[in-house]
Amino acid sequence: MRKVFLWGAMMLASLSLTAQENGAAKPRRQTMEWFESVKSPELCENGDVIFRLFAPQAKDVKLSSQFCPTTPMAWDEEEQLWKVKVHPEVADIYPYNFIVDGQQVSDPNNKEAFPNELFKPSLLIMPNPDMLYTERNIPHGKVHYCTYYSKVLNEHRPMLVYTPADYDKEAYTQYPVLYLVSGTTDTEETWYKAGRTNFIMDNLIYDGNAQKMIVVMPYGNMNTGNPRPLSTEAVKCYEVFSQEMEECIMPYVEKNFRTKTDRESRAIAGFSRGGGEALYTAFNLSDKFASVCAYSAYLTNNVYEQKFGKIIGNPTETNSRYKLIWFGVGSSDFLLEGVKENEQFFRQKGIVFEQFDTDGGHTWMNARKFLGLTVPKLFKQ
Amino acid sequence: MRKVFLWGAMMLASLSLTAQENGAAKPRRQTMEWFESVKSPELCENGDVIFRLFAPQAKDVKLSSQFCPTTPMAWDEEEQLWKVKVHPEVADIYPYNFIVDGQQVSDPNNKEAFPNELFKPSLLIMPNPDMLYTERNIPHGKVHYCTYYSKVLNEHRPMLVYTPADYDKEAYTQYPVLYLVSGTTDTEETWYKAGRTNFIMDNLIYDGNAQKMIVVMPYGNMNTGNPRPLSTEAVKCYEVFSQEMEECIMPYVEKNFRTKTDRESRAIAGFSRGGGEALYTAFNLSDKFASVCAYSAYLTNNVYEQKFGKIIGNPTETNSRYKLIWFGVGSSDFLLEGVKENEQFFRQKGIVFEQFDTDGGHTWMNARKFLGLTVPKLFKQ
Repeated sequence: MRKVFLWGAMMLASLSLTAQENGAAKPRRQTMEWFESVKSPELCENGDVIFRLFAPQAKDVKLSSQFCPTTPMAWDEEEQLWKVKVHPEVADIYPYNFIVDGQQVSDPNNKEAFPNELFKPSLLIMPNPDMLYTERNIPHGKVHYCTYYSKVLNEHRPMLVYTPADYDKEAYTQYPVLYLVSGTTDTEETWYKAGRTNFIMDNLIYDGNAQKMIVVMPYGNMNTGNPRPLSTEAVKCYEVFSQEMEECIMPYVEKNFRTKTDRESRAIAGFSRGGGEALYTAFNLSDKFASVCAYSAYLTNNVYEQKFGKIIGNPTETNSRYKLIWFGVGSSDFLLEGVKENEQFFRQKGIVFEQFDTDGGHTWMNARKFLGLTVPKLFKQ
Repeated sequence: MRKVFLWGAMMLASLSLTAQENGAAKPRRQTMEWFESVKSPELCENGDVIFRLFAPQAKDVKLSSQFCPTTPMAWDEEEQLWKVKVHPEVADIYPYNFIVDGQQVSDPNNKEAFPNELFKPSLLIMPNPDMLYTERNIPHGKVHYCTYYSKVLNEHRPMLVYTPADYDKEAYTQYPVLYLVSGTTDTEETWYKAGRTNFIMDNLIYDGNAQKMIVVMPYGNMNTGNPRPLSTEAVKCYEVFSQEMEECIMPYVEKNFRTKTDRESRAIAGFSRGGGEALYTAFNLSDKFASVCAYSAYLTNNVYEQKFGKIIGNPTETNSRYKLIWFGVGSSDFLLEGVKENEQFFRQKGIVFEQFDTDGGHTWMNARKFLGLTVPKLFKQ
């Protein structure tokens, strides 16, 4: 029986052309079935990972990743593929791509892509029972892709919402809400696809380590819209985000999902720029949020002084109002200094916060870790 | 104020290296802000589209797309980018990628990716008020990403489910269900991200041209699982899909969403391999489905004779049982001949069906068109 496929005909034509153009006398196997059978990444039982790439014209192919320095790949005569075997020290989820003669290329054989505005890496997902991102055979929540109209930015915008496993059954229950914001160049999908928020939440809730809650993942890029604003200054972006939250995102969520609506039942967290947006929003809308977590993120003393004089000027009031102010950062994070300055500033002002220092850099490996550590602290009775 | 970003530090280091390695004395602008400001694709008011790519080491860059033949791109000295301007005849949604020295590369500046197992094209999305995929300012449904355990394949599997705009409000309403299956190399996301099923449904329902319904988008690749089956023969795949539908997908959907459960309230459709799976399932589970649509797909006479003798042997019974059997195919589709053979076979056997012939090939431009034409025919009172 004939095999049915799409794109294939066309893309394969381009592969064949590629092969023919190359003068080298290497045998070619560029059938769809052969291309489908290429395993990359291949996870070996001993923790080795093998990457493979079909790039017959290439002179130089490297693996670029967040688990090892850039590593040359070698042409394998037998397999007729570029190939490299590596051994990540920790089994985790890592972005990676190939560099083919200087050009970044995602892994064509890997279905798992890192959602991003600018870079298109693939995701290496390594099974690890100790990691909260692991998919277990327990009840799973759902992730809802929503479209709402933003009157602030004058455009339709996407948003993802996680609801826990029992949400549909418990038809009269209202849930607390965590707003979870991703960073610069991320999309609204990054906390889901790279952050694996759904599986982290499923596991924490199932094990009794977190309250059942709704998690909202908005698109943190405010430099879109109609007309497109000209400023990319961070604090402007934070201001617009706070307005978007108050006027568009929160009303949509509270209309479309069964949410609790008191401030103690709302938290906001974010990674990188999203952490800046979270801090700004939590302090700007102090009547709406009681908890805030900044993952690899901070605000400057200047912003606090100019915008949030009431917050830093009245630590007794602030400390009684906020149930949680949390900072987490890695020792090699390029934003480490700013985070430490923010913590030091709060210490001087007498504002109570929690801090978590770890190793590693400005990575999604750390972002997932921070999420897993902070969610259990939220909405405690 | 400092700009916050992620991946950026690392990826930019790789870009800089790239630039330094190139001996040519071209000025470089590889800051994050510059990279973010690169517009690709740029949609011009007159319908022109400009594509841009930063590839300083490349010798030869082409645009490969489904709206024009492969087109060389030229280095633009002023912009310091590879660039090409094209004018697609019809404003539609098209997959495309760049070919950099023979290597397929997605557009790093385009957030819209084509979800796929093997090829990683980007999506050009052109506004066109005449196209059903257009996002209008009307109530929008939601798309739910679900995870279920498949006892057939012994693994967790993803599935997407569309619910119409009023689903959450109408808490006691039960809806008919369309199962919509994607093709070879597609993922469970392709009908959503490339097919824009949600906006097509929103528009049809809002305009009164379709019943409110739930649309389920399962992952059609049955050659996964634990252990992975060895056969890639199409009919084997269809058999497993039908079993997966009956034992896992339908029970999950009917437990987790408010569905009608009579056979007249169930339809199945699919594109390419997904159309084969749809036909096989509709005839194999004849007590569960009353409507089936094959988009660029067919089954062979051999399969009908060996597996569905009762269907083709009793046209009176078949014609009264099935409310709709529908075939659509493009005149340059590489599966045209098979579809025509299937239609001819049904004609000979006296089985009533509808057919829709159009131009174009085995493309998602046609798949979207077929969806928009068939959904209005389903679940009529």
